[in-house]
Amino acid sequence: MKKDKLRIIPLGGLEQIGMNITAFEYGDSIIVVDCGLAFPESDMLGVDLVIPDISYLIENEDKVKGIFITHGHEDHIGALPYVLSELPVNIYATRLTMGIIEHKLAERGMMSQVRRKVVKYGQSINIGPFRVEFIRTNHSIQDAAAFAIYTPAGTIIHTGDFKVDYTPVFGDAIDLQHFAEIGKKGVLALMCDSTNAERPGFTESEKTVGAAFEAIFAENVSHRIIIATFASNVDRVQQIINSAYKHGRKVVVEGRSMVNIINTAQELGYLDVPANTLISVDELKNYPDEKTVLITTGSQGESMAALSRMANGTHRKIAIKPDDTIIFSSHPIPGNEKDVSRVMNDLYRKGANVIFQDVHVSGHACQEEIKLIYSLVRPKYSIPVHGEYKHLKAQERIARSLGYDSEHIKILKSGDILEFDEGVAKVVGQVHTGAVMVDGLGVGDVGNIVLRDRQHLAEDGIIIIVITMDSGSGQVLAGPDIVSRGFVYVKGSEDLMDSANEVLVEKMEDLVDGGIRDWGRIKNELKSVLSDFVWKETQRRPMILPIIMEV
Amino acid sequence: MKKDKLRIIPLGGLEQIGMNITAFEYGDSIIVVDCGLAFPESDMLGVDLVIPDISYLIENEDKVKGIFITHGHEDHIGALPYVLSELPVNIYATRLTMGIIEHKLAERGMMSQVRRKVVKYGQSINIGPFRVEFIRTNHSIQDAAAFAIYTPAGTIIHTGDFKVDYTPVFGDAIDLQHFAEIGKKGVLALMCDSTNAERPGFTESEKTVGAAFEAIFAENVSHRIIIATFASNVDRVQQIINSAYKHGRKVVVEGRSMVNIINTAQELGYLDVPANTLISVDELKNYPDEKTVLITTGSQGESMAALSRMANGTHRKIAIKPDDTIIFSSHPIPGNEKDVSRVMNDLYRKGANVIFQDVHVSGHACQEEIKLIYSLVRPKYSIPVHGEYKHLKAQERIARSLGYDSEHIKILKSGDILEFDEGVAKVVGQVHTGAVMVDGLGVGDVGNIVLRDRQHLAEDGIIIIVITMDSGSGQVLAGPDIVSRGFVYVKGSEDLMDSANEVLVEKMEDLVDGGIRDWGRIKNELKSVLSDFVWKETQRRPMILPIIMEV
Repeated sequence: MKKDKLRIIPLGGLEQIGMNITAFEYGDSIIVVDCGLAFPESDMLGVDLVIPDISYLIENEDKVKGIFITHGHEDHIGALPYVLSELPVNIYATRLTMGIIEHKLAERGMMSQVRRKVVKYGQSINIGPFRVEFIRTNHSIQDAAAFAIYTPAGTIIHTGDFKVDYTPVFGDAIDLQHFAEIGKKGVLALMCDSTNAERPGFTESEKTVGAAFEAIFAENVSHRIIIATFASNVDRVQQIINSAYKHGRKVVVEGRSMVNIINTAQELGYLDVPANTLISVDELKNYPDEKTVLITTGSQGESMAALSRMANGTHRKIAIKPDDTIIFSSHPIPGNEKDVSRVMNDLYRKGANVIFQDVHVSGHACQEEIKLIYSLVRPKYSIPVHGEYKHLKAQERIARSLGYDSEHIKILKSGDILEFDEGVAKVVGQVHTGAVMVDGLGVGDVGNIVLRDRQHLAEDGIIIIVITMDSGSGQVLAGPDIVSRGFVYVKGSEDLMDSANEVLVEKMEDLVDGGIRDWGRIKNELKSVLSDFVWKETQRRPMILPIIMEV
Repeated sequence: MKKDKLRIIPLGGLEQIGMNITAFEYGDSIIVVDCGLAFPESDMLGVDLVIPDISYLIENEDKVKGIFITHGHEDHIGALPYVLSELPVNIYATRLTMGIIEHKLAERGMMSQVRRKVVKYGQSINIGPFRVEFIRTNHSIQDAAAFAIYTPAGTIIHTGDFKVDYTPVFGDAIDLQHFAEIGKKGVLALMCDSTNAERPGFTESEKTVGAAFEAIFAENVSHRIIIATFASNVDRVQQIINSAYKHGRKVVVEGRSMVNIINTAQELGYLDVPANTLISVDELKNYPDEKTVLITTGSQGESMAALSRMANGTHRKIAIKPDDTIIFSSHPIPGNEKDVSRVMNDLYRKGANVIFQDVHVSGHACQEEIKLIYSLVRPKYSIPVHGEYKHLKAQERIARSLGYDSEHIKILKSGDILEFDEGVAKVVGQVHTGAVMVDGLGVGDVGNIVLRDRQHLAEDGIIIIVITMDSGSGQVLAGPDIVSRGFVYVKGSEDLMDSANEVLVEKMEDLVDGGIRDWGRIKNELKSVLSDFVWKETQRRPMILPIIMEV
């Protein structure tokens, strides 16, 4: 019997943050690990989110046996509704992760279309030639799992997002013993989280944040406390609730995504809330400020999130007061720094005290933790995952420091086919991958042409030239007229606009006199003469759009 | 004789980074400190730079006696060409600062219009009731000065941007003795740099970066070294040249702004370059890689800067090689993090080694340095300057820790008139201030309306509705037709666009049948029906622009 080759094909998530999705293929079976979205880059104007192009999976639809989810963050589950609507395969996840996924599917009425299986730590799922074992890890959301993927070609360990927390708030520490046990039996490749691979040392335990909260609560007995953090960090919320309860404060949860996750976590028993601790925002007025705590979204300065609306005075129910103590229990995600600063400035302006130092820990492994996992697993191959190229390279340096040579470190890009043949790994080709932009209801109808137009419009606006012409005689019946948007303040620039119009009228006369009847040429000539005029006068390059109406 | 009141009126630079400019008014005299620009915020689409609205100075043109510049950074000098063209007053600055200003003025042919006076440390300028003394400070550019402004109402000290560097690379340490001496005689108010007021401790000496360079040069004897830093940090460049010379390497300077500043600094004797050390980029090929160093712009990931072009392979003369060692001698300015990461990723992809940790120090005073200046100067009033609101508040906390009460800490916003009457400071009113946006040649012709249009266009593009109507009969001669840009990929969305057109044609028929002849109303009705249709189909809100041509 011919032995098949194992192929690992990342369809997203490499050389970028987010959009994690990886296919594992052996013979006629494919399993997929994670199915995340990415948030749009700054040049993706108007785009709401980005999902992976799964053409490869669609082309191999019959092979795809299931999607395994490591944990419930958007960059690992966010593309599920889109992918499942094209490819309705079974999904496998731990309990809280599945709870969050189900909320997402229920919102879109997709629950009946998708078969779901909740998996426990230590449990394995057999699918075709694959056995996928769920291993307990720690992360900034509970119920995160690493996968040991046992295949006829060898064992692959995929860490998912993880950190090593010896003293987690909920549940147990990462199952280091089992990593060691599998490692002892021989691991072909380790796919390890690179997010923090540039950072030396160890990520601190989530419990250290609880201790910081305790100190702040003790110091601020006479102030209302408002804490912004990531909606999905249930352990963080648990620690806030613990401190609130201890200090006799009532807790309000504010922000839709926060409320959703907390409800899910509470229903499933991942959050322990003492009776009479949670109150609604409308009940706030029944308690003195210093006996309340608000937990809110908006720690990244998102303009529509609850904290931003409180800060700029547009929140319908909560106004910041001069004595409020506000904690940013988060670090700004790269790209969000200025938005976070803006919210902080607004809060300070309202007289609040803002605390943002030493009240957050990361959910990702730093260099020493990555070394620990390598040393327990001792894989033959290192495949850094999750991160921009620089993060993958940072993990490569770690692997090198542990003795791996370049033959045994595989830095992949999305679409690469890494094939294991008789235990030897090699990139043997590429599959089609890409980013599909979602804007409103449109999936994929915004592409590079639309984006380029939006960037052009954003930069210098648009000037529209309209002309009505007689389709028979080629005579100009009306125009050329110009209308602009986003170019100059028209009321203050009448001379400029008048001159621009004159330039066009003259050019049009020349063209008509010259007997030019080709409308394509007329459009180009008008565009060109106006573009030159505008550049000379303003050094701007607005989009110029000539429209000819036939009568 | 009636004693006049001293007024301090910041016209920019408070509650923002950049655009530093402050008026000091006494009787019929106004002097101005600094005249900087700000870089556009992310929502100022297409805007190149932002300058202060100086209406107050224009209205009081006869009073304005001179502009004093603390140092040669854009956020302190960048608005000079604009302001001087409206208000051609004398400018006063130290030698290097004036050299940089003169380069700027010469580029615009403004040298003959402006009287300039170079001032030495310790020297004073008498203007009307003011005496302005230049005091040596340290900063990330040489020749930075603080000002002691002696007025009949008392002495004001304005630090400019500063740090305390006991071991500067060029020249002497900040003149702490003189700060103490003036303080001893009594200072009415201290206007102190707040940029780093949130950071505990001391900013390290510029010389520590030189030591870091030495270590990197010693470790990288077989690699080409490329160092990106701020164009204006001449001391940083000096230290690179020192290490290069010591290690027998030739130095290439790349990037227009870098070349300009280095030329100016070298001409004026602020940069000591051993003979035969600087070579041109064309001479690079004559030397082995490991005997060269490139100093370049682009440390902030600016897309058009030299390093970015090298990184993405579009630099005409320099290609990154796999063995290059590239140093980012800088920290990302907030907002630039993702751009810097992008350039780093590109460099790693070309195989280069990238170093970005511990190779930069700030140019601004941290908390202990700020305390030191307060303790030497012991001003009656604290006026935190330079920074967003949160930075001003951070300095307020420092002042409070030193015993200042809220009566004696004045947090101003741009436009506030702080008046000193018999030694008592009070905000007595506001003058008109604001940000004037510069886009290409246009100064102030882009305002909020244009920006709002650009944001709208950027988000969802534009749909233009064109109709030709008979001006007499009101009959539709052509259209309604629609043209879109930046909305959807039209070739893939023909059904949508056809349906949109049908919706308009139907509506137009209704309007004509209903005898509606009011073109304003026709436009509004078409816009509204199309907007609803598009939202229902796509959940997008493109700008909709109806144009009616009369024949």
